Amino acid sequence: MQSIPTFTSIIEAAERIKSFTTRTPVLQSAWFNDQTGAELFFKCENFQKVGAFKFRGACNAISKLPVSEGKKGIVTHSSGNHAQAVALAAKLNGYKATIVMPENAPNVKVAAVKGYGAEIVFCESTIDAREETAQQIVHETGATFIHPYNYPDVIAGQGTAAKELLEEVPELDAIIAPVGGGGLMSGTLIAAKAMKPGIRVFGAEPELADDAYRSLQSGKIEPVLRTDTIADGLRTSLGELTFRIIQTHIDDLVTVSETSIVREMKNTWERMKIIIEPSCAVPVAALMERKIQVKGMKVGIIITGGNVDLESLPWM
Amino acid sequence: MQSIPTFTSIIEAAERIKSFTTRTPVLQSAWFNDQTGAELFFKCENFQKVGAFKFRGACNAISKLPVSEGKKGIVTHSSGNHAQAVALAAKLNGYKATIVMPENAPNVKVAAVKGYGAEIVFCESTIDAREETAQQIVHETGATFIHPYNYPDVIAGQGTAAKELLEEVPELDAIIAPVGGGGLMSGTLIAAKAMKPGIRVFGAEPELADDAYRSLQSGKIEPVLRTDTIADGLRTSLGELTFRIIQTHIDDLVTVSETSIVREMKNTWERMKIIIEPSCAVPVAALMERKIQVKGMKVGIIITGGNVDLESLPWM
Repeated sequence: MQSIPTFTSIIEAAERIKSFTTRTPVLQSAWFNDQTGAELFFKCENFQKVGAFKFRGACNAISKLPVSEGKKGIVTHSSGNHAQAVALAAKLNGYKATIVMPENAPNVKVAAVKGYGAEIVFCESTIDAREETAQQIVHETGATFIHPYNYPDVIAGQGTAAKELLEEVPELDAIIAPVGGGGLMSGTLIAAKAMKPGIRVFGAEPELADDAYRSLQSGKIEPVLRTDTIADGLRTSLGELTFRIIQTHIDDLVTVSETSIVREMKNTWERMKIIIEPSCAVPVAALMERKIQVKGMKVGIIITGGNVDLESLPWM
Repeated sequence: MQSIPTFTSIIEAAERIKSFTTRTPVLQSAWFNDQTGAELFFKCENFQKVGAFKFRGACNAISKLPVSEGKKGIVTHSSGNHAQAVALAAKLNGYKATIVMPENAPNVKVAAVKGYGAEIVFCESTIDAREETAQQIVHETGATFIHPYNYPDVIAGQGTAAKELLEEVPELDAIIAPVGGGGLMSGTLIAAKAMKPGIRVFGAEPELADDAYRSLQSGKIEPVLRTDTIADGLRTSLGELTFRIIQTHIDDLVTVSETSIVREMKNTWERMKIIIEPSCAVPVAALMERKIQVKGMKVGIIITGGNVDLESLPWM
């Protein structure tokens, strides 16, 4: 069983990745404040390298490897932001990355990963095929496998976003973030509860991918049952490590409809002039629909990423 | 003849509008740096109140009025960002604003202005009808007419964007901004040349609205000949005051094609995850097409606004 990262490991991660990452700005919106009756602070990880918070975790995990291990290469399987994050973090450390992607991955994602100099190995589009292919590469080359969330150094890296947010806005009463595999939420919980013990930390999920909600209810990891939510970053189930952390520390977790995800994605684009991917709109929707009581509170929202196909927008 | 605002009036403007405006962030992009061989600093006025730098000028002009004048009301004619800027600035000062708009103005613009509590008076869609209607209201009510650019207090307000940019990045070698009516460029020239005498200031225009380019060539104000550029904020001709300032101080002014405006607008959305309107992409296009030599330089770009109809994007 992997051990839960400490706040010290998040402080160390912040130091380790500082020169590689962007210290992303925290933006406010008078309109969203009016609508929610709260004061909201958007931590803009859509402005992070590779366009998503995922770079923090991948960069911490890869930079922390002994050089002798890194030289054997880095492997992961992903067709999303984690793939680009691993590719860039490996490149910046001078290591070779191999990304296992399903053969039906969109060209734009494949091109982005290649653009960071990683090698791509295609496989069948099942989770079993992806894991097997990645494990085979590990076996053959001695490369290190970087799991997208169920990995202590990745979780510690993701926690640096909440750390920066609380450094910039120490008076926050609460933080809200989306829950997919749970890496961001785990890092956020560890950082926030250590820095400000009284703070409340909330999670939000699409109704169509409410596995974390069900897992908290049943007390064991429940799998995602469908993968058709528009919030493509949140289609994964929790891991053993992230479930343990979330189960212990989270204050509340709510779900929102697809309609409200699209509506708040568009509202955020229109009102804040920032490009956010659908996953980011999930916590915004939770606040706008008053699924969580935040009236009069100062609330941080972690905006997770901005990688969207601009040729095909969900409201068109 | 109106007198050219001094840098002192920009300092005073900055103080006057401070509590009303957003101090907008300055963002960078590794991708655009790579592409241009320069180090670029984007001053994000798309995050300004009403989504555009125009709020600075309107807010300065209206806040500076004696209360006895302001109480008689504020008038302007515009269907663009200046209309919203005047409406909000009047509201914040407790004055009544009347905006003259062409009867074919898009509903979304009309709704935005109404949302700030202004009264709208519709007229025929000619510049003569708009000016006449506005003058009639001035005549009847004693309201103050706030011109969108040919107005010293508006120019002083617009100059506060460049002032903030140079305070944050004092090592800039150059600043580039788009030229429409010339209010932003005039304020930028006055602020930049006063704060850093050696700095170079460049302008950029659409080829389809190259009136400032032709005016600099001929030595007199040349009108815009067509109004079909996608850069809807730049379809206006220079004013007497803005022409004088630009003619005296600008280092160079270049024009770019519609194709490259759309391309760089999309590149900015994709790479920087910010929503910019087409006018903002005009200086970006000038740098990307190497119309101005900036290799190895630190260059500030004023991103003018982010008001775009998300239902109809130019690349779709």
